Amino acid sequence: MIVTVTLNPALDVTYAVRAFVPGATHRVTTVACRPGGKGVNVARLLHALGEPTIALGLAGGPTGSLLRIRLAAIGIEEAFTPIDGETRRTVVVADATAATGFWEPGPEVTTHEWERFREDYAARLTAASLVVLAGSLPPGIAPDAYAHLIELAGAAGVPTILDADGAALRHGLAAQPDLVKPNANELASLGVPPQRLGARDVVSSHGPRGLLASTSAGSWTAALSTPLAGNPTGAGDACVAGLARGMASGQSWPDRLTDAVALSAAAVLSPVAGEIDLDQWRRLRSTVVVKEN
Amino acid sequence: MIVTVTLNPALDVTYAVRAFVPGATHRVTTVACRPGGKGVNVARLLHALGEPTIALGLAGGPTGSLLRIRLAAIGIEEAFTPIDGETRRTVVVADATAATGFWEPGPEVTTHEWERFREDYAARLTAASLVVLAGSLPPGIAPDAYAHLIELAGAAGVPTILDADGAALRHGLAAQPDLVKPNANELASLGVPPQRLGARDVVSSHGPRGLLASTSAGSWTAALSTPLAGNPTGAGDACVAGLARGMASGQSWPDRLTDAVALSAAAVLSPVAGEIDLDQWRRLRSTVVVKEN
Repeated sequence: MIVTVTLNPALDVTYAVRAFVPGATHRVTTVACRPGGKGVNVARLLHALGEPTIALGLAGGPTGSLLRIRLAAIGIEEAFTPIDGETRRTVVVADATAATGFWEPGPEVTTHEWERFREDYAARLTAASLVVLAGSLPPGIAPDAYAHLIELAGAAGVPTILDADGAALRHGLAAQPDLVKPNANELASLGVPPQRLGARDVVSSHGPRGLLASTSAGSWTAALSTPLAGNPTGAGDACVAGLARGMASGQSWPDRLTDAVALSAAAVLSPVAGEIDLDQWRRLRSTVVVKEN
Repeated sequence: MIVTVTLNPALDVTYAVRAFVPGATHRVTTVACRPGGKGVNVARLLHALGEPTIALGLAGGPTGSLLRIRLAAIGIEEAFTPIDGETRRTVVVADATAATGFWEPGPEVTTHEWERFREDYAARLTAASLVVLAGSLPPGIAPDAYAHLIELAGAAGVPTILDADGAALRHGLAAQPDLVKPNANELASLGVPPQRLGARDVVSSHGPRGLLASTSAGSWTAALSTPLAGNPTGAGDACVAGLARGMASGQSWPDRLTDAVALSAAAVLSPVAGEIDLDQWRRLRSTVVVKEN
């Protein structure tokens, strides 16, 4: 079973409006709502791929309850640790031409809540084949939080994938995650190769130019033979889901990278950010080119 | 006790952002949340004025729960009838220069829920001195809903104030509410004086030009001696609260109108839409000019 950790999940809300005019009042024609946050998105994709998965993290307040109810409703096993603070919402306002986003701040997390999460997480490691740690840290959580979780997994013999940025990424690397998946900006902001900071394997994503894998077993580039246009939101999470599934099942690196590129591309083509059409994914796999460097 | 009815309440959410850029993603710096909808706003003002009040209406889902919790937290008695649908939110995004609003659609209300509300409402009429019916109707509620509620109040000997627009106003008037409070647009859209459609007394609001009362006891205009600049959001609800309080306590028309104009003006001056400073209200009362026509 793959464990995903989302310490700062969100309820992703999309408002459709006819024409977006700053300063005006808009009647929202439809409201769409779904559980979000990077780790939750990875869990949803793994579940769609038929991979046994459990979503852990921190959730609180009416929005946290709704997030958990929605996860259960789509069949995703979850065991979020309750907190007093209110889980954030992201609101995207979409008209025919543009999408404008509003990200609420995450809830303040207490030391006691964080300790309870660590206990809940440690208890789940016994049945875990892999842990995916993804996304931002809410207020109150120290920047070395991922490092602690990676160490606990390591001590239990469970491999880890880290997808974070800024201080959370840098501190997390020091605990030697098995795989880290920065995008080009995150990679550049580190200033040195992630291996120098502690990572074993690195797969970096470079938009339409594909993936660059620099691993203990070799180095590869993987990309579609012809890049696709579309909405890149969710492509990174689809990539992580593909890498996690490949790692948990012991796929070869070229196969993992093929799946990850094709999943990202399917996410880019999807009309709903972060959702994928599995048939499209299967078709796209045959168009991925992997080269050993 | 004054009963307020809010069939389509809202959780009013305000997002503060640094600079609002359409098409961009914004980090929300603060999130403010409060119970809203016209009838709820009137209840809050009546409560602030020390008037015994109970807020009735329809509320459902996590947002409906939050709305009720927030009302209780500020000491407002409420007995909302639960529904399955989710109470709407209004989101206002404010930066230093402008406020942009997004109004979610209201929840779909079933016939059974509406019948349950009518029973709950009828049971509260025995202790009611006055009923205020205010705001829009959610989907599923027939446009003559206010007419039914006005008839039930009339049969119980309880006077009614109606503050609505469009079909809800027009149908409501046919049931002969004791007082209706249209603004200039609502008045114009009726095409004929509201008395011709069934209202006994009419107080129409005309922004900085003040109130025009056309009643069975006489006709008056009431306005500040010098109009004020500010945010008119909530001024209409403050006016209704003033009229309701005056009606319930048997104030003379000139006194009611003085209070209503001063409450509206205090709302216009308030930095928080719909909140009022009672000291300011008391000061403003001395600057209201009432003329009999």
